[in-house]
Amino acid sequence: MNKEIKKKLVKNWFSDLQDLICYEVEEIENKSASFKINQWVKNKKKDEGGGEFRILENGKVFDKVGVNFSEVYGSFSKELRKNIPGTKNNPKFWATGISVVMHMKNPHIPAMHFNTRYISTSHEWFGGGMDVTPCLKDNRLKSWFHIELKNCCDRHNKKYYKKYKKWCDNYFYLAHRKEPRGIGGIFFDYKKDNWEKDFTFVRDVGLTFKKIFSLIIKKKIGRKWSSAEKDLQYIKRGRYVEFNLIYDRGTKFGLKTGGNVDAIFMSLPPIAKWK
Amino acid sequence: MNKEIKKKLVKNWFSDLQDLICYEVEEIENKSASFKINQWVKNKKKDEGGGEFRILENGKVFDKVGVNFSEVYGSFSKELRKNIPGTKNNPKFWATGISVVMHMKNPHIPAMHFNTRYISTSHEWFGGGMDVTPCLKDNRLKSWFHIELKNCCDRHNKKYYKKYKKWCDNYFYLAHRKEPRGIGGIFFDYKKDNWEKDFTFVRDVGLTFKKIFSLIIKKKIGRKWSSAEKDLQYIKRGRYVEFNLIYDRGTKFGLKTGGNVDAIFMSLPPIAKWK
Repeated sequence: MNKEIKKKLVKNWFSDLQDLICYEVEEIENKSASFKINQWVKNKKKDEGGGEFRILENGKVFDKVGVNFSEVYGSFSKELRKNIPGTKNNPKFWATGISVVMHMKNPHIPAMHFNTRYISTSHEWFGGGMDVTPCLKDNRLKSWFHIELKNCCDRHNKKYYKKYKKWCDNYFYLAHRKEPRGIGGIFFDYKKDNWEKDFTFVRDVGLTFKKIFSLIIKKKIGRKWSSAEKDLQYIKRGRYVEFNLIYDRGTKFGLKTGGNVDAIFMSLPPIAKWK
Repeated sequence: MNKEIKKKLVKNWFSDLQDLICYEVEEIENKSASFKINQWVKNKKKDEGGGEFRILENGKVFDKVGVNFSEVYGSFSKELRKNIPGTKNNPKFWATGISVVMHMKNPHIPAMHFNTRYISTSHEWFGGGMDVTPCLKDNRLKSWFHIELKNCCDRHNKKYYKKYKKWCDNYFYLAHRKEPRGIGGIFFDYKKDNWEKDFTFVRDVGLTFKKIFSLIIKKKIGRKWSSAEKDLQYIKRGRYVEFNLIYDRGTKFGLKTGGNVDAIFMSLPPIAKWK
């Protein structure tokens, strides 16, 4: 398939998925909060693309949700080219992605994160994943979540779940504290096995995330919480900030390539605490 | 002077200064809060030193103060040796330091940071500085603060203030936001001009910090604040977290050398917010 057609298909899907997810979130909020839409351009002087991030705050269910869509292009600096496949002889890149982070009011509902992206250099590949960060332990939820992910993966390839779960466990790990960020999920990168199958998988991951976050909220929304439990959530959010600022590749990539700070830091919680 | 005597003199001074600063903070709190003392060892299996960090929380004047003293030693990893003077042929190091961070209840009082350290490899040098981060603008306070710093520097060398102020401005800068962390201060590193004079300067910087934080608090403590001003402080503290986790060399050094996480993150505010 023509490269330009691929780009257009993926970009349109990520943009549509942004609409689908935002619609679902606002349905859950049932009119008590809505998204603010922020459009941004990467470079004001020349066309390097941009994106749209949407933030919903102070809802009845969500403390903060950020849903970011981007389509950016340009040339990588020498420093970045070392780490990006397919840029050795040509620094040009084109990238599109969607990322979502949800910080919940009820500390019984975990923070949820999802991202899929597509990068085109002289190579082209998909990346993405999702993970969930509870502040209160719930083994049943953990099992259920991983079965849902396994089912999603198994629809495409019986080897994916094991491989992508392990990748996620390794990635979302706070080495300085020797603790995982949450209860894991799936994570994949440099995925370029078969373009059409990969794209089908990526679409399924997005729809599975939409299903999972809605069901987790439904399962947990009725549970009462104490101020001590809310405080545990603030502390756990501090860990979230630590992960995103110290380790997260997307954050580092965004800051180094002059991305929009507000869009990049959309993932940060509204309030975090440290003891 | 014998290397071991130098180490002992510096270490004892940093430890004494910890006592002096903690005493002053508790005097300001006037019995409404006191420090909790935490001792830690760097390596439980073999002797690599350790330290003592003291944290005071939820005071009438201070939301959180951390005062950390450390004396650590061992061998640098290959990766770290590249960046540390005097370790090319011998990876051994010995280091002692004191660092202080104060997050204030009253948003009219800036957050204050101070640190001095002494590192001994096949070279030996001092480093340190202090800087101040207001969330509300006050040009008179800024002028006064810099005059105090200039006076301190001028007592030792007329060239220090200009040089160390600039170093501080360059260091405490959030490149991703194109904004300074606060109103600056002084910062110096790899200082090894004349051991006795350097040590005298480092002692004076410590005592000047003690004088400055007490006076800033006295000047500002009577000012009333609104919840909007407190919220501005929480946002500014978010920037503080960003700086410490993304840029701060001491934090990175500590995390990479397996330092005590609680002691390293003592600098983080009790509560931070992101919009």
